[in-house]
Amino acid sequence: MNKQQNILVIGAGLCGSLLALRLGQRGYHVTVYEKRPDLRKVEISAGRSINLAFSDRGIKAMKLVGLEDKVQSLCIPMNGRMIHDQEGNSFLSNYSGRDYEYINSISRGELNALLLDEAEKHDHVTIHFNKKCQSVDFENTTALFFDYETKSDFVEDADIIIATDGAGSILRKSYFLGKKFLFSFSQDYLTHGYKELSILPTENGDYKTYKNALHIWPRGSFMLIALPNLDGSFTVTLFLSFDEGNYNFNNLTTPELVTEFFKKEFPDALQIMPNLIEDFFKNPTSPLGTVKCSPWHFKGNTLLMGDAAHAIVPFYGQGMNASFEDVVEFDAVLDKHKNPTSKSDWETIFKAYEHTRKKDTDAIADLAIDNFHEMKEHVNHDLFREKRNLEMALEKNFPNEYSSKYSLVTFNENIGYREAMLKGRAQDKAILNMLVEGDIDMHSDLRHVLDKVKIETEAILEDDRIAGLK
Amino acid sequence: MNKQQNILVIGAGLCGSLLALRLGQRGYHVTVYEKRPDLRKVEISAGRSINLAFSDRGIKAMKLVGLEDKVQSLCIPMNGRMIHDQEGNSFLSNYSGRDYEYINSISRGELNALLLDEAEKHDHVTIHFNKKCQSVDFENTTALFFDYETKSDFVEDADIIIATDGAGSILRKSYFLGKKFLFSFSQDYLTHGYKELSILPTENGDYKTYKNALHIWPRGSFMLIALPNLDGSFTVTLFLSFDEGNYNFNNLTTPELVTEFFKKEFPDALQIMPNLIEDFFKNPTSPLGTVKCSPWHFKGNTLLMGDAAHAIVPFYGQGMNASFEDVVEFDAVLDKHKNPTSKSDWETIFKAYEHTRKKDTDAIADLAIDNFHEMKEHVNHDLFREKRNLEMALEKNFPNEYSSKYSLVTFNENIGYREAMLKGRAQDKAILNMLVEGDIDMHSDLRHVLDKVKIETEAILEDDRIAGLK
Repeated sequence: MNKQQNILVIGAGLCGSLLALRLGQRGYHVTVYEKRPDLRKVEISAGRSINLAFSDRGIKAMKLVGLEDKVQSLCIPMNGRMIHDQEGNSFLSNYSGRDYEYINSISRGELNALLLDEAEKHDHVTIHFNKKCQSVDFENTTALFFDYETKSDFVEDADIIIATDGAGSILRKSYFLGKKFLFSFSQDYLTHGYKELSILPTENGDYKTYKNALHIWPRGSFMLIALPNLDGSFTVTLFLSFDEGNYNFNNLTTPELVTEFFKKEFPDALQIMPNLIEDFFKNPTSPLGTVKCSPWHFKGNTLLMGDAAHAIVPFYGQGMNASFEDVVEFDAVLDKHKNPTSKSDWETIFKAYEHTRKKDTDAIADLAIDNFHEMKEHVNHDLFREKRNLEMALEKNFPNEYSSKYSLVTFNENIGYREAMLKGRAQDKAILNMLVEGDIDMHSDLRHVLDKVKIETEAILEDDRIAGLK
Repeated sequence: MNKQQNILVIGAGLCGSLLALRLGQRGYHVTVYEKRPDLRKVEISAGRSINLAFSDRGIKAMKLVGLEDKVQSLCIPMNGRMIHDQEGNSFLSNYSGRDYEYINSISRGELNALLLDEAEKHDHVTIHFNKKCQSVDFENTTALFFDYETKSDFVEDADIIIATDGAGSILRKSYFLGKKFLFSFSQDYLTHGYKELSILPTENGDYKTYKNALHIWPRGSFMLIALPNLDGSFTVTLFLSFDEGNYNFNNLTTPELVTEFFKKEFPDALQIMPNLIEDFFKNPTSPLGTVKCSPWHFKGNTLLMGDAAHAIVPFYGQGMNASFEDVVEFDAVLDKHKNPTSKSDWETIFKAYEHTRKKDTDAIADLAIDNFHEMKEHVNHDLFREKRNLEMALEKNFPNEYSSKYSLVTFNENIGYREAMLKGRAQDKAILNMLVEGDIDMHSDLRHVLDKVKIETEAILEDDRIAGLK
């Protein structure tokens, strides 16, 4: 077996470091270049999302690389959404009717550090920091870097290049600007942006509000959320329109206005955020965008993975999980094919990978936008709550027979995102319509409800299939 | 009234010349720059689509500028699709059950020439050719041009700039590369490309096949179409995958292979195309792409219109019609607002225009892709034919009560594309499912069928509304 193929990975973020680790475990020679300093040695920059939702698809990737146990200690379980209304009342809405299904809050920095440490344990994996990729010559499989330390350019070549350089990927930019092939590409921004804030721990280092939940203050056209950190703090994110509505990022220009806004909309949050004004004016306001593109690969030379191939908005908590699943899927494709020794072997592998994977990353991108509306509006909506309550009951009583769309997406790592989306949307449609028409309600016999939901879901899927002439 | 606002229009194609004409009629000072030579003085380049489908939305625009009669003489009515099967049999499938509903084949060049002539009749409208736009400084409302005649650059400024410079718009590129605001953008290519061919007239100048139809040779994964020209010829277009299937654009590299392909797939067309090989190797193979973007305007300075804002694939025959409808819609927005005298007035107008218009151009883009599949596959499909036959009967018997999706899109210029799409898709779904389930068939009482279709269509729309929590 010739495992001496040299693989260049651009970007040592979550996806790149996991990929380097896995390729290292498979015996490849891997060189990683990262534009930022080593985050194990310097403070992470403010304003980037500090903690992330980590769930079953991510855990499956950790199992693949044998880090399931080590990652456990970084996790804070969140069993549901803690919904806060405008009067300061709150109630917990579980993510699943099955007790053992929950998501986790995890520190981006600590998880990344763990993956870097593990990757570097392999002699044939080397990671270089402060080297910024400037362009990729995908026809010749070389990349141009700028070294922030020596202030000079250098070119690297490799058998293949995999770019895991995030939403602003340089390889993707090179594909787009190169015009050497038909490159389908989209960037779609929401009208809303986000800003990170914080709830600091009490003087004793305790959590100021309930630890094991993802807190949401849904207000229809905007919302605030909070995820717990290990140190007793919460990272808070405000999602708000740039220029619409009475309060927006463009017109919240003074401490007085920001305080007024929070006092009116998030009074209970304001009480535990004495540092609000400082955070608000220190931290940047960032856009929320979705990126899709195709093809991900150029022949057998280069490949996009993670956010570089499919950046999504954060509302399903699946960004990192999807990128980790990329590595799992890529690994499975490598298993299915003979050990690649030529460009043509790699081309076959890249093609097969994109073919199986893209439909799923397209689906999670769309689901994430759906969930933006669900989180800021629907969780406070009577019909939606009725549906959730019914689904919780179905999951609790028929743990092996029913999974909501949220569960299909989040806790069913062996079902692809696309299948989860199609089935989940059909279920939602079935339940909402049957509730409105009075065919089912919370007082109906649950077995009877489950049967009706199953039949109606299948009918909806079948009607769609027929209309598509499939 | 101050009508002395100076408007710079980039591009004198179909949309730009109609826009210049209409703005001229409204009294504005309009200067148009076009990169190509004046098409009234030189031959149009080969390989661009020579004739186009022209229908009610386009005719509405001609009425607006008073050219309804003049344009008539350029039109060849096409009453339906003439479907050609692999054995050389053909049958006509009308576009509508109403005799007075048909589409037209029209020459791009002659229509464009007419619009240029009419625009230039206004003293305050001037059109310059051979001036290529290189970039637009949308913050300062100036555009940089290269003059092919003097071989030099020059900068033009104006009160507002409207770019009607097509799918490869320079203003859109300036928006994208400028990164001065969040610009959502997508370019999506089909796996198929197209090549223009021709059926020449007989020696006597007659049509070699039926004149008043859009001919289609649907073959599932590819197709050939033909539209009549006034000179007795047909412009033929082959839509074929670049690299998939037994025959594709990448592997049709020799005259022998092209002949073999046509002999096998389009034997009746081959018989009347003795010039096939010459055309095939002379004309370029072009990609098929959809472009969407937002915002179309930058403040009150610049605006994208026509293909520059929303390029679509040609399969609904709506590209030109949609661009003409842009001018109609823009004109209606101008009517609704006070006469603009400042950037802020123009910003209000541009915003209002995009707000009413974009949902409809997004819809026709999606419909055009649907129709790609319909034309190459479904027209030959039994269930689809049954649906079409039923719809023809409904349109014929209830001309004021029923319109198919095709009719809603093509012949109902007072219904927006989005409404046509939603209603049309729901109708299709209703009929296809009722046919499959045996609820209706060609032998049912038609009034009964119509009632069922109406009820089921409304139920489908209502279910979707509920599922969307609207």
